[in-house]
Amino acid sequence: MADKNFFENKGPFSLQKIAEICEAKLADVSKAQLMIQDMATMEKAGAGEICFFYDKKAKEKGAQIKASACVTTEELAPLVPESVAVLTAKNPKLAFLKLNLEFYREYQPKPDIASTAKIHPSAIIGQNCTIGEGVVIGENVKIGENCIIEPGVVIARGCVVGANTRIGANATISYAIIGENCYIYTGARIGQDGFGFMMIDGKHKRIPQLGRVIIGNDVEIGANTCVDRGALDDTVIGDGMRVDNLVQIAHNDKFGMGCILVAQAGVAGSCTFGDYVVCGGQTGFADHLNIGSGAQIASQSGIMRNVNPGEVVMGYPAVPIKDFMRQVAYLQKVGKK
Amino acid sequence: MADKNFFENKGPFSLQKIAEICEAKLADVSKAQLMIQDMATMEKAGAGEICFFYDKKAKEKGAQIKASACVTTEELAPLVPESVAVLTAKNPKLAFLKLNLEFYREYQPKPDIASTAKIHPSAIIGQNCTIGEGVVIGENVKIGENCIIEPGVVIARGCVVGANTRIGANATISYAIIGENCYIYTGARIGQDGFGFMMIDGKHKRIPQLGRVIIGNDVEIGANTCVDRGALDDTVIGDGMRVDNLVQIAHNDKFGMGCILVAQAGVAGSCTFGDYVVCGGQTGFADHLNIGSGAQIASQSGIMRNVNPGEVVMGYPAVPIKDFMRQVAYLQKVGKK
Amino acid sequence: MADKNFFENKGPFSLQKIAEICEAKLADVSKAQLMIQDMATMEKAGAGEICFFYDKKAKEKGAQIKASACVTTEELAPLVPESVAVLTAKNPKLAFLKLNLEFYREYQPKPDIASTAKIHPSAIIGQNCTIGEGVVIGENVKIGENCIIEPGVVIARGCVVGANTRIGANATISYAIIGENCYIYTGARIGQDGFGFMMIDGKHKRIPQLGRVIIGNDVEIGANTCVDRGALDDTVIGDGMRVDNLVQIAHNDKFGMGCILVAQAGVAGSCTFGDYVVCGGQTGFADHLNIGSGAQIASQSGIMRNVNPGEVVMGYPAVPIKDFMRQVAYLQKVGKK
Repeated sequence: MADKNFFENKGPFSLQKIAEICEAKLADVSKAQLMIQDMATMEKAGAGEICFFYDKKAKEKGAQIKASACVTTEELAPLVPESVAVLTAKNPKLAFLKLNLEFYREYQPKPDIASTAKIHPSAIIGQNCTIGEGVVIGENVKIGENCIIEPGVVIARGCVVGANTRIGANATISYAIIGENCYIYTGARIGQDGFGFMMIDGKHKRIPQLGRVIIGNDVEIGANTCVDRGALDDTVIGDGMRVDNLVQIAHNDKFGMGCILVAQAGVAGSCTFGDYVVCGGQTGFADHLNIGSGAQIASQSGIMRNVNPGEVVMGYPAVPIKDFMRQVAYLQKVGKK
Repeated sequence: MADKNFFENKGPFSLQKIAEICEAKLADVSKAQLMIQDMATMEKAGAGEICFFYDKKAKEKGAQIKASACVTTEELAPLVPESVAVLTAKNPKLAFLKLNLEFYREYQPKPDIASTAKIHPSAIIGQNCTIGEGVVIGENVKIGENCIIEPGVVIARGCVVGANTRIGANATISYAIIGENCYIYTGARIGQDGFGFMMIDGKHKRIPQLGRVIIGNDVEIGANTCVDRGALDDTVIGDGMRVDNLVQIAHNDKFGMGCILVAQAGVAGSCTFGDYVVCGGQTGFADHLNIGSGAQIASQSGIMRNVNPGEVVMGYPAVPIKDFMRQVAYLQKVGKK
Repeated sequence: MADKNFFENKGPFSLQKIAEICEAKLADVSKAQLMIQDMATMEKAGAGEICFFYDKKAKEKGAQIKASACVTTEELAPLVPESVAVLTAKNPKLAFLKLNLEFYREYQPKPDIASTAKIHPSAIIGQNCTIGEGVVIGENVKIGENCIIEPGVVIARGCVVGANTRIGANATISYAIIGENCYIYTGARIGQDGFGFMMIDGKHKRIPQLGRVIIGNDVEIGANTCVDRGALDDTVIGDGMRVDNLVQIAHNDKFGMGCILVAQAGVAGSCTFGDYVVCGGQTGFADHLNIGSGAQIASQSGIMRNVNPGEVVMGYPAVPIKDFMRQVAYLQKVGKK
């Protein structure tokens, strides 16, 4: 499945081995020594390959499986053709993840500092780092060990990057303290001025932005996403947060642990998010809002008031999702007249 | 019209020559040898210049034309002042395009490999390529002939770029196979990880993204647009597709031929588009949808269900456009009370 | 408050000095010689620090102030604890700005041209410029004095950059004339082709984009924002305009003075904006619209018709904001049933 020019396959593995890796039960033990070369999608997997079948909304696809083996649930197993070796697991998605990590491991460049990288003499670079071509690292920057700084990245004076963090090509980092095990993707913009102005004599005067961006551990910031630094206070991204591409995070926003912002979401300044808030794509948030832990915001919603913990909202302006669905049903009736 | 610091004017041309280029009919043949220096907009064109008049919604502008000549339709011709030499063409927009290509041709840098470009010894660069300053080209990359790779571009290991393709400054390409005659604009991000996670023990664990981005021939990808690579499968951009700036294309999305995504559109993962689908600006698509060939999606619409071939939809959530217009009319009546 | 690794504090200042700077009245003159070390937010300011209290929507926070001093209004002053030295000003926000500029001044790199910058011999660089590592400056480019061009910026042939302008790391500039005192942030894309195509024989043929981007004086263009150049005409950004991150400005758009576009707003081609138009985040504009001076467009609105000067609109499609509020009230009643 995976293109050998990009990914290295560490298989094959026997079904017995795969059952162990996946914490799954092999239905027909006589097939324990069958060798599996690769993983593939349900649609594409063929001889020598294994697929994963867990989408209850696509039950009809079960009968079409042509893979040699399939990891599925007890419930869906009867839908798989007899010719396919079935492994049942409590959570086939988790099984997929585990097998994936055995079959393929992400390509890692060798630790090295490119000759064209420009590193200020006062900067401290940890052991085993990869610093790519054309990287620029400013005064007093500190980079932890095992970091990968891809080509063209610019890290401005004073920034700190924790161990095992990877920064994608052509990203720019300033006024930021970044934790460990983070992945900042290509073209992300971290730490530029927040958008703060004051009208004086008919001109927009910029308010000095004297805060920083503080990024916790195990955070991902998507490609071309922007995180502005704080004005008086800091912009804070909590541990374990996942931010998709092209997202806007404004000055002084504060996020708890494990929040998710899907692509093109935008959060105006000085919002406070609890933990594990999930925001769909293209959602927008007005400034100074409190969004409680566990809240879920449906895609494209416009949030103009605080959201309670655990609340699920949708719409423009957003309302509880059941209310939104009733609004939609009503309008669709009106539209059909 | 065009600033000579940026564009080279290859005129002047006689009206006779212009009539040939535009496949247009010159109304007053006594003006066949009148020389035209340049093209300009209806509003700005003056003596020695030609303009194009085809916007039926702005008929009143016809009387204001001060150009020496004007290409228009039979229908609009009578609205042009008598002093202006009129050329009539079936399709004045097409005539504009043809004359434009004669008057001006895009600036092309001379083939050259900059001394500061870092090209891995195993990479293959075709003939007549322009490789700009600070470009980084990784292991086993293949670049076809006549490509222009602008300064600061990073092309990671294993990627393939077809002949005559241009990649704009500071774009980044990884895990991608790009066709011929494409234009990837400045700052585009191609091939980074899709946004796929699984919650395990309270942490979002990244799902390895083992697919690629496959871009067909004659494709344009706008500035700062992001195209994530597939998870198990590939992300596929069909021949002739046009993607505007700041668009998000997620993992495993598949587009047929000639689709158009206007600026800031966002498509969640695993969607399948037919051919010639047109998506307005800021449209959003939920994951796993099928969008039929020829469908048209109005700007800012939110698509949460499949769209049939040829269907024209609008709204959040989107409905057939006539239904949406009735919804709007109803709400506007409510709002006026 | 401000992290000394990033910002230099020029204090302390006495309250008397601060009263002068802020044009404020110190309530208790016996405290005139009290020294203030720093500024901080209302929540964080403690001993030796000053805060600013002007948010009438958060009056309850007044009693919690633990700062040594506080600048506020006559109206809010009685809410501040007695232990805090109170200064009253007509406009505490303006006072904040003035004191901020005294305490901290933005870090400026020393004028220097990096050895890795590639500057075409025909380019003219003004005095006292800072040209960062890896910058590429093309043929006939003119850069005014005191400019800061951060690392990785690419400025293509023929462009002009006015005095005192700063261009953030990894931004790209082409076909553009930029005024004085501007700030183009990291990753901004200025001057690429507009998104103009014509369908000929089933293929989208690109329309040559022969215009420029003209940016006035005192303009800010946010991180990763895209400004396309004009087709026949120019794209024009008026003096004093403020554009946030991830905004799309299409070909031939024209903006008057002092307009504001908040993050992720998108304007389709050939729109004309008056002066001081304010557009909220994620707003979208159809092409060829006229938006009058002083109009205000609420966040996420979709604008499909012209907007009169001073009009305040909201919704999708946008209507006068009072109408929109009535629509919302109606729908929320429907949703609650």
